[in-house]
Amino acid sequence: MMTSEAAAVGDPLEVGNFMLSNGLEVVVIPDHRAPIVTHMVWYKVGNADEPAGKSGIAHFLEHLMFKGTKKHPAGELATKVAEIGGEENAFTYRDYTAYFQTVTPEALGTMMEFEADRMRNLVLTDAVVETERDVILEERRSGIENQSEQLLDEEVQATLYQNHPYRIPVIGWMHEMEQLNCGDALSFYDRFYAPNNAILVVAGDVDTATVWRLAENTYGAVPRGPDLPPRVRPQEPEQNTKRTVTLTDPRVTMPSFQKSWVTPSYGTAEPGEAEALELLSEILGGGTRSRIYQDLVVKQGIADAGSAYFDGTMLDPSSFTIYGSPRGGEIEAVETAIDAEIQKIIEDGVTDVELEKAKNRFLRSVIFACDSQAGMARMYGAALATGGTAYDVQERPLRVRMVTAAQVQAVARKYLDPERSVTGYLLPRQTVTSGEKSR
Amino acid sequence: MMTSEAAAVGDPLEVGNFMLSNGLEVVVIPDHRAPIVTHMVWYKVGNADEPAGKSGIAHFLEHLMFKGTKKHPAGELATKVAEIGGEENAFTYRDYTAYFQTVTPEALGTMMEFEADRMRNLVLTDAVVETERDVILEERRSGIENQSEQLLDEEVQATLYQNHPYRIPVIGWMHEMEQLNCGDALSFYDRFYAPNNAILVVAGDVDTATVWRLAENTYGAVPRGPDLPPRVRPQEPEQNTKRTVTLTDPRVTMPSFQKSWVTPSYGTAEPGEAEALELLSEILGGGTRSRIYQDLVVKQGIADAGSAYFDGTMLDPSSFTIYGSPRGGEIEAVETAIDAEIQKIIEDGVTDVELEKAKNRFLRSVIFACDSQAGMARMYGAALATGGTAYDVQERPLRVRMVTAAQVQAVARKYLDPERSVTGYLLPRQTVTSGEKSR
Repeated sequence: MMTSEAAAVGDPLEVGNFMLSNGLEVVVIPDHRAPIVTHMVWYKVGNADEPAGKSGIAHFLEHLMFKGTKKHPAGELATKVAEIGGEENAFTYRDYTAYFQTVTPEALGTMMEFEADRMRNLVLTDAVVETERDVILEERRSGIENQSEQLLDEEVQATLYQNHPYRIPVIGWMHEMEQLNCGDALSFYDRFYAPNNAILVVAGDVDTATVWRLAENTYGAVPRGPDLPPRVRPQEPEQNTKRTVTLTDPRVTMPSFQKSWVTPSYGTAEPGEAEALELLSEILGGGTRSRIYQDLVVKQGIADAGSAYFDGTMLDPSSFTIYGSPRGGEIEAVETAIDAEIQKIIEDGVTDVELEKAKNRFLRSVIFACDSQAGMARMYGAALATGGTAYDVQERPLRVRMVTAAQVQAVARKYLDPERSVTGYLLPRQTVTSGEKSR
Repeated sequence: MMTSEAAAVGDPLEVGNFMLSNGLEVVVIPDHRAPIVTHMVWYKVGNADEPAGKSGIAHFLEHLMFKGTKKHPAGELATKVAEIGGEENAFTYRDYTAYFQTVTPEALGTMMEFEADRMRNLVLTDAVVETERDVILEERRSGIENQSEQLLDEEVQATLYQNHPYRIPVIGWMHEMEQLNCGDALSFYDRFYAPNNAILVVAGDVDTATVWRLAENTYGAVPRGPDLPPRVRPQEPEQNTKRTVTLTDPRVTMPSFQKSWVTPSYGTAEPGEAEALELLSEILGGGTRSRIYQDLVVKQGIADAGSAYFDGTMLDPSSFTIYGSPRGGEIEAVETAIDAEIQKIIEDGVTDVELEKAKNRFLRSVIFACDSQAGMARMYGAALATGGTAYDVQERPLRVRMVTAAQVQAVARKYLDPERSVTGYLLPRQTVTSGEKSR
């Protein structure tokens, strides 16, 4: 039973954090509610670490990691996990790639043996790589090319970031994915998949001593990989312009828009700024109690949806996004109204009452995320893979509590400049612009 | 005296083209109109070849190349050129960096000795590099940051190209330029400045045999540099959106706009397409006889200026740009009218008469460019540094002559899609957009 906010993200007195001699960092989060354990390996490499021209290789390698080793052929891990009624999966994002299984505590050692084995011993052939490439190409076709929202979002990101690799889609650009080969996958694997570039997160019905013993016996035997330089990526230049990106697509049934700004992340922010941005997104557009929802959807009735979004768990500068979809079809009124909501906060700030409510909502969402064992493990893994510490994760609720109304107003004023924004428009049909006939 | 178009770009029978054993390619263009010679060294490296995060290093190195060697201290070359009443300079662009002197034929050997010496023997110290860095930072401040047209153009480029390094400004992003140091300059120099990555172009009152002898005695002694991989840069993904970039600046007195599309270059185009794009830019917006000028400035009187621009001499996909500035201040009418001019060509094509006139204007501009000895040398150097050959330069007038009206219409239809364009707006004052108060 979770009874306090601090306990939500693991009891600091109980969370174990140590390093094996080969450089593998280990975090253990005891959670004895049920006899299950979540075993996650995080690699500090994501699509923002890909070589130029090789977009998609991080995610492609995530797929290829299931193709087996000399010791454990493809499918053996999946069979083992299924036998004991467990779950397994993997995900790739901008700064990390992670693999996890949720199993019974008795199976933890076996899972570690599998993960430790495929950390350095993956076997790939041209045939396997080429077949799996068709899978990721199809994943892009169905998940991006055939989803106009995703396609727009991709080009908005590429317009928002002009220098930093966050401009590149995680799944990759189609024309580069088509060229990825076995050599690309192996050189990426050899460079980045090693204990000294990984974090092991174990959450569940185990204790730190047991995890330490099992980890030593499995991961402990994996040799260090190459020493990697600091993760320094090209940073954004000053943005002097207001930009728009418009996708007109006959498949779209309802217009919508999104507006984004580059902002600090937990990895780059001045103390308190990332927390203030979390609360700003909560106040502006976090659910049905937010300003945008209450004013546009409930009161004025001009929007079907309206929200705000901030993901601070990034190594480099993140972004803040608002979103709106008109009721009926007039996109301009919704954009104008949302702009006005932002301007109101920039000029008049937020009230202590709504700040308090936003804090409660935000912290409740953290608690809910941690109610799932995998969610809790994920929070630690993502923080550690983006330059944070276990202590940061535990302290975050407290730091969010400390944010003042003045700080929320300050980040709105500092970062949400309308003259430095990037807006994406999704329009339902070929608009006949003046001077141009529809074809 | 130039009497034919072919002769304009050097007589094919007279142009010499050979390679020294260390890999230096040499082009000799005899031009006996006056007792002068233009000596140019082109390095096949520009800002599109810079390492990630080191934007501006190509141009910075161009400055540092004047800082002297052990044999010839800084200033000695300039003094020597000035003594004989010559000229010297250098320039950096996306795909190349070049150095040249125009001098009397007797001084050619001396110039070669200087250039061959600084090809591998440049001496740099931290003190020299840091002092010169202030110069390029000031160059950026005065040439870009204080010029709103340049600032807009920079962000339009970065929005037009999302993956290819052509998105990065040639002078560099300020925050990266500030970090460039002696080590960056030397590693770039050591890698790219070598005979096997250079082209020597000599135009003037000399013959090929003399150039060959002088070059052997000077450049011939310079050892090869490292073997370089092919110049493969990340290419653009499919563009699905229409984008805008708006710069609002109180220093702007007259609004204007530009609209750009990524197009093939001579380096990437299907046969005839780049030539057709040259003629399309000529018909649409090349000077006062063009459609845009005649219709918008002369007939309708709604614009003060209107033009079109295409630079095909690039290694990778280039861009096509139209430009317009309203008379009085209504930007929208001008944009609409220019869009309509493009649409007219897409739908109805161009007439044979205007195509013929455009060819004559274009070829005359080539002749005028070649009337300057440095201009002729520059045409060869740029072509050879972007994957072309001396033969391509000589054949270009003929290939432009062969373009049909149908080809011009085809490239307009294929590349100038209004739904896939990037438009930049330069606006004179803080516009009060709805929902936002001026501050």
